[in-house]
This record gives sequence, structure tokens and C-alpha cells, in this order.
Amino acid sequence: MEIIKHPQKSEWGNLCLRPTKDTKSLTASVSSIIERVKNKGDEALRSFCQEFDGYAPDNFRVSEAEINESENKISPLLKQAIEQAKHNITTFHTEQLLEEKRIQTTSGVVCWQKQVAIEKVGLYIPGGSAPLFSTVLMLGIPAKIAECSDIVLCTPANNKGEIHPAILYAAKIVGISNVFKIGGAQAIAAMAYGTESIPKVYKIFGPGNQYVTTAKQLVSLNNVAIDMPAGPSEVAIIADAEANAVFVAADMLSQAEHGTDSQTILITDNEQLIDNVIEEIEKQLPVLPRNEIAKQALEHSKIILVKDMEEAVLFSNEYAPEHLILSLRNDESIAECITNAGSVFLGNYSPESAGDYVSGTNHTLPTNGYAKMYSGVNIDSFTRKITFQKITREGLKNIGNAIEIMAANEGLDAHKNAVTLRLDYDEDENNF
Amino acid sequence: MEIIKHPQKSEWGNLCLRPTKDTKSLTASVSSIIERVKNKGDEALRSFCQEFDGYAPDNFRVSEAEINESENKISPLLKQAIEQAKHNITTFHTEQLLEEKRIQTTSGVVCWQKQVAIEKVGLYIPGGSAPLFSTVLMLGIPAKIAECSDIVLCTPANNKGEIHPAILYAAKIVGISNVFKIGGAQAIAAMAYGTESIPKVYKIFGPGNQYVTTAKQLVSLNNVAIDMPAGPSEVAIIADAEANAVFVAADMLSQAEHGTDSQTILITDNEQLIDNVIEEIEKQLPVLPRNEIAKQALEHSKIILVKDMEEAVLFSNEYAPEHLILSLRNDESIAECITNAGSVFLGNYSPESAGDYVSGTNHTLPTNGYAKMYSGVNIDSFTRKITFQKITREGLKNIGNAIEIMAANEGLDAHKNAVTLRLDYDEDENNF
Repeated sequence: MEIIKHPQKSEWGNLCLRPTKDTKSLTASVSSIIERVKNKGDEALRSFCQEFDGYAPDNFRVSEAEINESENKISPLLKQAIEQAKHNITTFHTEQLLEEKRIQTTSGVVCWQKQVAIEKVGLYIPGGSAPLFSTVLMLGIPAKIAECSDIVLCTPANNKGEIHPAILYAAKIVGISNVFKIGGAQAIAAMAYGTESIPKVYKIFGPGNQYVTTAKQLVSLNNVAIDMPAGPSEVAIIADAEANAVFVAADMLSQAEHGTDSQTILITDNEQLIDNVIEEIEKQLPVLPRNEIAKQALEHSKIILVKDMEEAVLFSNEYAPEHLILSLRNDESIAECITNAGSVFLGNYSPESAGDYVSGTNHTLPTNGYAKMYSGVNIDSFTRKITFQKITREGLKNIGNAIEIMAANEGLDAHKNAVTLRLDYDEDENNF
Repeated sequence: MEIIKHPQKSEWGNLCLRPTKDTKSLTASVSSIIERVKNKGDEALRSFCQEFDGYAPDNFRVSEAEINESENKISPLLKQAIEQAKHNITTFHTEQLLEEKRIQTTSGVVCWQKQVAIEKVGLYIPGGSAPLFSTVLMLGIPAKIAECSDIVLCTPANNKGEIHPAILYAAKIVGISNVFKIGGAQAIAAMAYGTESIPKVYKIFGPGNQYVTTAKQLVSLNNVAIDMPAGPSEVAIIADAEANAVFVAADMLSQAEHGTDSQTILITDNEQLIDNVIEEIEKQLPVLPRNEIAKQALEHSKIILVKDMEEAVLFSNEYAPEHLILSLRNDESIAECITNAGSVFLGNYSPESAGDYVSGTNHTLPTNGYAKMYSGVNIDSFTRKITFQKITREGLKNIGNAIEIMAANEGLDAHKNAVTLRLDYDEDENNF
């Protein structure tokens, strides 16, 4: 862990840098996977499954029976927890639906926006050591609230052809029935272009390894949208003398256990807290099952001592963390000053894990400084806002002249003409 | 103009195809422009200006005097028209600002979204034959309403070093003072990476030629966001027996004059209307100043005869037009069925030109079928929605167990621990 005391503003840029990954080396191999899936469909998927996962299913689609059986394979306590999370995520995301407001901008000129679901969406859920059933909730619930009509979920099976039952159960209670056993870049390509088994979608969501991330970027250049660019998970904690070192240490560790490339930054104006947090980390770390991962992640984590909370906020806004925890006295007023972050956790009893699972906010958030320009996943991510306008004859009289003048000045006379002909038209006589 | 009568559903896919442009050939040359600007800054910009525009300004920044003088170089009528457009665009976009709503998802667990401006945005306005001052309004006004703090506008100067006064005037009344004389892929690179003169931004907006579009796509892979992928402009018109052939022809021509690659589609259930529209086009076309462009665009435009309005809507939703005009009896009820479009114009007196300039809706819209997954530019485009949560001790007791169970089942024990330690903590005794 690196401790940086009172860095000069000129050093901030470097302190905010994330480790850059050279994904260019992956581009060629991922491109070739995408091309093969695009051209050969299921046949290519089967051969990649065999090659990468050691198992190629006869049928990519998970059967209704498999989905239904998942319920018997997980504990009642986990089912209850998932239900509670579902309730809160549903409550928070439903409130994001837009009401249609008709706006009269000029007499006779009425304009409105309508929030309309993206019809076909694809959700990617990684396999690997941790079964991310929570991500099924975080992507599936807003897709359902938005009323996306076709929701496809791809996730890799293990080498026995099984998917973790908690993933299937989460899909079931969200109401997703199109679940397919396929992972990696090939799954992204399948959803982007469609195969005999996997339906093509318009937008692809979800986390994944570097192959998945690269595949998402590549297909996004060709008629498929993606949720956002992805990088390693990260947290920044702004803490003052009021912070509880035990909690701060626990929050840093919960980020660090994600992966060896996880980013953890503590920003504080209190030197004593730094000592206390380090001591606490040393206490909590050894007993964690994933302590080897967390240890490596902590090696490149940073503790930054600043002169006051104002400087802490400035630094944090420059860093633009995915998660930001405010463990400090004036959390509400400091929160008002946060301009760049994915999700903000106020006070001593709002750990990041709450937002990761149950509180109701989404955990799919911008990393790698992308919080400066991207939102986390929310209802907007699954919808578009289509604009409408209805202009009466009187309304067109009110704005027609301005249109004609502007069009003529842009050298677009046919644009002008479309107005002139309407204004000249005599409705009663049906002539011009 | 191709007339297709009662196409089979199996043919729809082909009828909806846009001409594909091979931009791969541009990637290499645009990449090298971007690299040079990234490495050499203003020096590279100057040499590209000289090479491509035949003029390299001493100072890229447009002076305050130049901006102020613009007011004297355009007609009072145009100024008035621009003011009227500004009023309506402001009215419509201001209504899109989100009110903060605090949601209690569980007792003691309060979550909210806050709409926060993207701090640094770059607007690109192309040069060329038509001075697109309307686009300055369409991008600049929502950026101002969103309260983006740094707004940069790049637009190429002519070979005398001048920018069209209407563009400068529009910038002035919107309140944009950072205007730079630079165009093309090099302008996009400058805003993406920053140079000595041009500030780096977080998100780049605006139309442009294939070089600009390719540059936007390339920089979007590296820490800069863009508004949306761009293609040639397009309109679809759904018309029934009630439509006025004169208006329909005028609307088709106003799209066709944009460029030889503009897309125009008329979808109707009325054969007589087809004859009338073709006759009208032949009448209106020859007198248009840009009739050569329009003529070429019309060569690849299509008229599609369908059996009824239901089929018309299905086809239009499959095509996903940038602009959709509903010239028909039941425009309001048909509008309810539109799921894929950028902006929809209802009735006989809502020409596309109204939305292009004055009605208040935005004219920066998704083309090339991207209306299936992207919105047009709106306030969301200039903001992010940051989520916040504040949980009380009681609140964490209410959801803590669910978090612990889910975290443990995902194999993330440190996530669980961050909750357990808080629940175990005795505030009064200050111990665990």
C-alpha cells in the first residue's frame, strides 16, 4: 500500500491513472472469434465451447426443467435474500420511469418525449469462481421494468454442462426464460449477430473478462450498442476523524477481494486514521478466504493524505471512482459536491456491499474514470427517448417564418419549401 | 425511385438495409491523424489545417471581437429566427431535467439518483457548403441547460480563416465562448486528447463527414464518450389516403437535398397517392437549388405499398427511421405504436423542417437503424445519473442479513464482513 502525503496538484493526474491494459493484442484473436461466429453460427459456437470450456452442449438453450429445478438446489435463506434484493431493486428502478409530458413550446406546437424499451437486449453473466447471480438481478430487473420484449441471457456452463443454480433461480424470478449456455467473446458475437440458437439483440450488457470486454467494444462499432466500457472494479473512500477504521478497512478489503487488479483508494485528512486503518487491514486480511487476491490488490492501492475535506472532494472528482464511500461527519453536504462518481455511499452504515446486492441501486457502474462521462446502468440504459411533435396549422404559422429563414440561410431550400407549401395551402379551397 | 408493391415479410430485411460504407479503409489514415495530434499537439493541427483546408490560423481560438462582430454580419430576420428557435429548444429541453427523488426501498435505506452535468464537452460543427448554425443551437442549448462547465466548439474556417457569422452568432447567444478554428478528424483528436490550444473534453458531439465520424469512433475506444454513431440522414413517411401529396413530396425532397446518400422512404396503403407524389416530385424538384443532389438521393429512395396501416407501422419499426412523418388520419393512435424512430412528426402540418430548426425537439438523431438502441441528443446526453444511498444503523439491520447471505454465496466474504462488522459494532461501548 502506497501512502502519499500532501501530493502536489501536478501529481494528481498520475495518482488518478488506472493500470492500462494492452487489449490491442487481444483484438486480432477476438476479431477472428467474432468473424467465425458471424459466418458459421452454432457450429463455431460449439467448437469454441469445446476448445475453451471443455464442454459443448447439444442444445445451448437451458431447458425450462433446468430453470425450474434450480429452485430446489439453493437454500431457502438465499432465496429469501434474493427476493429481498429483487424488491428493493424493483422499487428503486421503477421510480426511474419517465412520465410523458406534453410541452407547448409555441402556441400550436406541442412536443413530447416518450420512453420506449429497447426491444431486444442481451445480458452476459460471467462464469468462473463466483456465480454472479446478483448481476442477473441488476440487469434483468430494469430490463423487465423497461418492458424489453426479448431478453436473452448468456452464461457459460461448467465442464459438466451445468450453470450455477443461483444464476438460474435469479433468471427465473426475474422472468427471463431465454437462457443460453455460452460464454466468452463467442457469446458476445452470438448476441450481436445471432446464430441458429441464439437470437440477435440490439444492446449487450454485463461484465466479463478481457476477451468479453474486447468483444463488446468490437461489436459496438457495428450496429450493436453496449452498456459501457468496462475495467477493473474500484472504490474510493473519503474519511475524516469521525470514520471508523474497522469499517474503512473492511470496505477496502471488500473491494480488494474482487480481483488482483481492483483499485482501492483512501483519501483522508487524518494521519491517525491512516495508521488505524492499516492496522485493521492487517487484522482482517489473513482470515479472508480470498486473502491472496486481496493482498495483491492492496499492493497497488493508495492512501492519500490531504489537507482538508475540500481537497479530498477535488481529488475524488478528479479520480472519478466507480464507488465512493463518504465516511465523514458532513456526509450529506460533502455528497452535494461530488460531480464524478458511479455510486456514492453516505455515512458509516452504508457499505459498498449494500449497493452491490440489496439496497436497490444498480451495481453495474462506470470504472476507469468513465464516471466522468457515463452513468451506471439504470432504466435509461434499457430504453430510448423518442421525441414526438404535433403542430397545428396555426402553430406552423407561428414558427413557419423562422423555419423558412433558417433553412434558407443554411442553403436548404427544400426544407424551406416544405413549410412554404403548407402555409400557402388553402384548406377550404384545396389549392395553393 | 424504386416502387415495391406488397413486399413479402422475408424481403423486409433487405429493404431496410442502408448502404454500407467501408470506413475500414479510412481507419488507418484517421488513426495516423489522431496519433500525430496526440503526440504533437498544435504543431500537428497547424500542418493538417494547411494540408486539408489551405489555411492555418496563427491562433485557433476565435477572438471575442470576432464573436461579437458576427452580430453585425447577419440579418435582423435571421437573428430573430435564431432567437425564436432558441426559446423553443430551451423550453423543451429544460423540461427534461430530472428532479431528485429520495426513495426509501426498505425502512432506513434511502436511495436516490442525481443528474449531474458532464463537466467538459466538445461540440463539432462541420464547415462546407451549409453553415450548420442550427446544430450549434441543438448541441449548445442542452449543454448549457445541463450546466456543463466547459463547452468547447470546433469548426473549420474557410481558406481566408473565417467562420460563418451565423455559427458565431449562434455560439454567442447560447453562451459558448471557447470556439476554435479547426475541423476534420484533427479537431476530434484535439478535443479527445487536448493540445496547447484546445482543451481536452470528456464527450464529443456533432455531425461530420466520414473522417470525422471515423475519428469519433476511434477516440470513443479510449476514454472519450461520443454522442452516437452517425450515418446519412433519413426520413420515412407513413401516409394514407388523407395525406397531401404536395406536402409528402416536399418532405421527401427536403430529406433528399441533404446529400446524395440521404435515405427517403414512403410507406403507404394508397396506390393513387404514389402516382400523385411522383408527379409532385417531378414538379417541385427542378426549381430547387440543390436539385442535382436531391435527384441522386431519390434514385435510391423507395416507395413501399403495404396492405394497411398496421403493416406500415410494422415495416417502419423494422426500418427504425431517424425521422418519421405520419401523414394520416389517425396520427395520434398510430404514433402510440411506433417503437423504433428518432423523432416522429404527426399530421399534415408537422414537417421535418420544423424539428430541424424551431419546434424545440433536437435534430441530432440516430440514423442507420440505430434508433433501435439509441436516443437522439437530449439532456441525458450531457449529464450522468449518479446514484446515492444513505443507510441508517437500523436500515442496515433490515437488509444486512440478505447482503451477508448473497455475498457469501458469491464467494465474496470480505463483502459480507463489511456488513457483519458494522452489525456487531456496539456504538455505545465503541467496541465489537
